[in-house]
Amino acid sequence: MSSLSITLQPADFAGVTLVGGGPGAADLITVAGLKALLAAEVVVTDRLAPRDLLRELEPSVELIDVAKVPRSRFTAQEDINALLIDRAREGKRVVRLKGGDNYVFGRGFEEVLALQDAGIPVRVIPGLSSTIGVPALAGVPVTHRGVVHDFTVVSGHLRPGHPDSLVDWPALGRLRGTIVLVMAVENAGAIAAALIDGGRSEDLPVAVISDGSLPTERVVTTTLAKLGDVIGTESIRPPAVIVVGEVAALGRA
Amino acid sequence: MSSLSITLQPADFAGVTLVGGGPGAADLITVAGLKALLAAEVVVTDRLAPRDLLRELEPSVELIDVAKVPRSRFTAQEDINALLIDRAREGKRVVRLKGGDNYVFGRGFEEVLALQDAGIPVRVIPGLSSTIGVPALAGVPVTHRGVVHDFTVVSGHLRPGHPDSLVDWPALGRLRGTIVLVMAVENAGAIAAALIDGGRSEDLPVAVISDGSLPTERVVTTTLAKLGDVIGTESIRPPAVIVVGEVAALGRA
Repeated sequence: MSSLSITLQPADFAGVTLVGGGPGAADLITVAGLKALLAAEVVVTDRLAPRDLLRELEPSVELIDVAKVPRSRFTAQEDINALLIDRAREGKRVVRLKGGDNYVFGRGFEEVLALQDAGIPVRVIPGLSSTIGVPALAGVPVTHRGVVHDFTVVSGHLRPGHPDSLVDWPALGRLRGTIVLVMAVENAGAIAAALIDGGRSEDLPVAVISDGSLPTERVVTTTLAKLGDVIGTESIRPPAVIVVGEVAALGRA
Repeated sequence: MSSLSITLQPADFAGVTLVGGGPGAADLITVAGLKALLAAEVVVTDRLAPRDLLRELEPSVELIDVAKVPRSRFTAQEDINALLIDRAREGKRVVRLKGGDNYVFGRGFEEVLALQDAGIPVRVIPGLSSTIGVPALAGVPVTHRGVVHDFTVVSGHLRPGHPDSLVDWPALGRLRGTIVLVMAVENAGAIAAALIDGGRSEDLPVAVISDGSLPTERVVTTTLAKLGDVIGTESIRPPAVIVVGEVAALGRA
């Protein structure tokens, strides 16, 4: 094997590019996403964007971590929208870098709408969603022939029964496919109870993967009935992807 | 902006690497996937793998398109498993390249199990799944704050009611989230009817995206009640991703 190199021609796009950075490891970004990032003059990022990618940037690039920007009277998202519009109006090539994919609970479409309203050119480069990629890297396939023909990705940021929840947990309990939960560490026990109430087995295998794709990755396997307790006893902290279903027992273990 | 290039050090892995190639455009593969591909001595691919990626390979690389391999007395998948094992036992660096992600209806885990049984080292580099990436590139977010907190990815290769189907279509009808259908062109009318029977609105927006991410990409928008007819009148051909839900009406249109 000879030493190979390929040239990545930076993509010259005057406007804002939403880039999905993938689950966390720097090399899980797409080639198109990396090209856009290397061409950026301004990079707007936050907590879950892959940190190692940011080290690739030239010192001249303005790097803005919106997790650290003081809040104004607007919501954080409105501040971020205003920042993207502001820098784009200065004529800068702006990249909005998120972890995973910007359209999977990443508020990316809100940013697209705000930019379109402001007349700013915007394009989207999807990223490897943690909801699929993190289980795969931990040895858990979200689908497997003869076992499961569907999977549902759910945000667990609101507990079942919360008035603002848009999720029909009883229907999810009745479904037979894999369930992939994100932002669910805090509500895992209540979610497990709702799924069991809806018809899922207490013994259904569950894999909890925290810090997926990073050197600090941890995989804990349990059952649906024990999920809430295990989150506590194992001191699981976000970010974590929780896979509920037969596939969770097929992995490395 | 200066012309930049980055060196991709090929990843030296003695065994079989499953690589998700993404939806079709060459630059939607991950950086890690491209590294593995550039280091491969044998690439085993099939119909939906991104064609333009294969043009990057050195002439010395053995490229095997399993869509064109004559079938033996085994099923196609058993033949593919045997081929991967055979080449790996020759000491070759083998890449199994699929479109999208190998674990999203890609039979990747079957290959992993066969390779593990044969004592062959195997690793998985996830890819950008067409189920998320294709809608995003067509301007359709699978989630959107205040609209939908969950999405379900379903294989439509078996029609509702088929004895081998593992999908609970009535429960999917009851769910409120986005539904992303793949391999569903043939059964789209029957699937739409089952979802309406289960409780989904006849007027629910639907986006049908064929050849996503490629120059031949086409997006057709309709409603759930009209989906079956539109597939016919618009002559939609696979591969297509069908997005069912409010988000399908938020796009470019």
